[in-house]
Amino acid sequence: MKGSRIRIALDAMGTDNAPAEDVRGAVEALRERRERDFEIVLVGRESEIAAELAKHPGADRDRISIVDAPDVIAMGAEPAQAVRAQRESSLVRGVTLHAERQVDAFVSAGNTGAVMTASTLILGRLAGISRPTIASQFPSADGYTIVADVGANVDTKPRNLYEFAVMTSVYAEQIFGYVNPTVGLLNVGEEEGKGEARAVEAYELLKASRLNFKGNVEGRDVLKGTVRVVICDGFTGNIILKFAESVPGFLKAKLRAAAGRSLGTKLLAAVSRSFLSSVFKEMDYQEYGGVPLLGVNGVSIIGHGGSTARAVRNMIFKAEEMVRHDVNGKIAAALAAGS
Amino acid sequence: MKGSRIRIALDAMGTDNAPAEDVRGAVEALRERRERDFEIVLVGRESEIAAELAKHPGADRDRISIVDAPDVIAMGAEPAQAVRAQRESSLVRGVTLHAERQVDAFVSAGNTGAVMTASTLILGRLAGISRPTIASQFPSADGYTIVADVGANVDTKPRNLYEFAVMTSVYAEQIFGYVNPTVGLLNVGEEEGKGEARAVEAYELLKASRLNFKGNVEGRDVLKGTVRVVICDGFTGNIILKFAESVPGFLKAKLRAAAGRSLGTKLLAAVSRSFLSSVFKEMDYQEYGGVPLLGVNGVSIIGHGGSTARAVRNMIFKAEEMVRHDVNGKIAAALAAGS
Repeated sequence: MKGSRIRIALDAMGTDNAPAEDVRGAVEALRERRERDFEIVLVGRESEIAAELAKHPGADRDRISIVDAPDVIAMGAEPAQAVRAQRESSLVRGVTLHAERQVDAFVSAGNTGAVMTASTLILGRLAGISRPTIASQFPSADGYTIVADVGANVDTKPRNLYEFAVMTSVYAEQIFGYVNPTVGLLNVGEEEGKGEARAVEAYELLKASRLNFKGNVEGRDVLKGTVRVVICDGFTGNIILKFAESVPGFLKAKLRAAAGRSLGTKLLAAVSRSFLSSVFKEMDYQEYGGVPLLGVNGVSIIGHGGSTARAVRNMIFKAEEMVRHDVNGKIAAALAAGS
Repeated sequence: MKGSRIRIALDAMGTDNAPAEDVRGAVEALRERRERDFEIVLVGRESEIAAELAKHPGADRDRISIVDAPDVIAMGAEPAQAVRAQRESSLVRGVTLHAERQVDAFVSAGNTGAVMTASTLILGRLAGISRPTIASQFPSADGYTIVADVGANVDTKPRNLYEFAVMTSVYAEQIFGYVNPTVGLLNVGEEEGKGEARAVEAYELLKASRLNFKGNVEGRDVLKGTVRVVICDGFTGNIILKFAESVPGFLKAKLRAAAGRSLGTKLLAAVSRSFLSSVFKEMDYQEYGGVPLLGVNGVSIIGHGGSTARAVRNMIFKAEEMVRHDVNGKIAAALAAGS
């Protein structure tokens, strides 16, 4: 079934406004990247998807197909249980299409835990990878800092941290264009030997590797952009990601409160808020779309449930880039070279 | 030697501009809180301190004394080794004065690790406390969120997290006025059973305690102010503290870059920067002064090396409040009540 054209399965029941936003995102992705040779397989309730598609008469129907999946995994469902029980769900069907190599990538804004679980179980892991990781981008002084793991794992081992570093370095180079990216290990101090036992052991593994390892970095180095890739356990990474995501809203609320009642200060506060929004655009998932689950034997892109069509479109672009750049092939090569 | 008047030992060689900033901070503290009955013992090189004092003819000399200590522990010195070897240093002398109960508190902007080590070794720990903790304040929607541990410990055990929660709750109540403060455990999800093995075990200890425990909180809840006290391991806490401290500088640099060359946008960017500064004032150590090392058998206040006289003054105020509110006595009572 697979040709040279890249085929991407989209879980059309993923967003909070499914399938409307998901379908619109697919239509927009195809419209905006006419030059790229990819097509989209919409997976979900066929009649609902068809009804949504009918609202977009200009849609490039030659590059859109539908695979029916009658069931939907709920946002709050327990991931492992849902993936086992709901074989007819859009999420499990979509991942299975990918495992059967009928498509080259899978994209979903649905239940994050379920996407991770289904991808890991059904696609399997890349050879040499013991645990997949989620890499997310933070804004930095001159671009992005890519941080992993931001929540795919708890109780991380030193060997996992090394694997995260290999995968995230390849991702940063292929998708962000950072050649031979610098890598730092997130720690409580810069000196070798600092931090938890896990960090001390991981330091040695990274130092002995062929990665462009610069040693330990601290919490302040993420936004500073001291290195391009920051590696940490999934517990710490998840907490700084959510902390960082809360900064714009916190500041905007404070600015609103500080603005008071005068028209002048209100205007200034409004201007400040818009400045803040532009700075934090890099961290806005509506802009960057989704994050890849690195380390599975395939391309799986995870998005927020609150994704708009714009975010869905950007998730599809990310999937297409991951396939086109053969990120997984390059991870395998890096591991084989004893990175 | 000790009367009813509170006596505070200040490491006069602590700041990067010692003893000038340290001495000026002491002079200002006494001037601004005339109504409070406390005195300051300046510990350090007597001749240098006397020379600085001479520059403040209005200083309240009746409430200032000097204890000579010829040696200074360097900022970059290895803490344990320095504390062992440099017995004649201002830092070790000051802590020793406190251990001998010649003073009621010790304050230093010097080598943080050395202050922690000296305080723990020389003062000893409070009964029932296995590890001291550093609690730091973050701004929140309606006041402060007090987070501990922010870096006193690595390889934290669940029992340590429980002790941090007891100490930080007392601190939040006595110093910040949050009666029976709400407590959250920093985790990667809100549901019980989430996160690392350490967090899962700590959850049970906190749930069984008499603390006002509200369950797990996430990275976003710190600034949101979901709870007053957030408990985490020292590794994670140190990383979010340093991340948060880097936010204002990062945003100001971005605003400067976004401002461009036009006078109008430059002005707006300048206004935005000043808004940001006011919002982050709560996290500025020049304002809050220093953080207590909770759990040692005494009052030990730790400050940044870059402290100005204003920060030193605020550290002295913090020490005086810790003594006056008998925070340690209340921690002992809370532990005895099986908090």
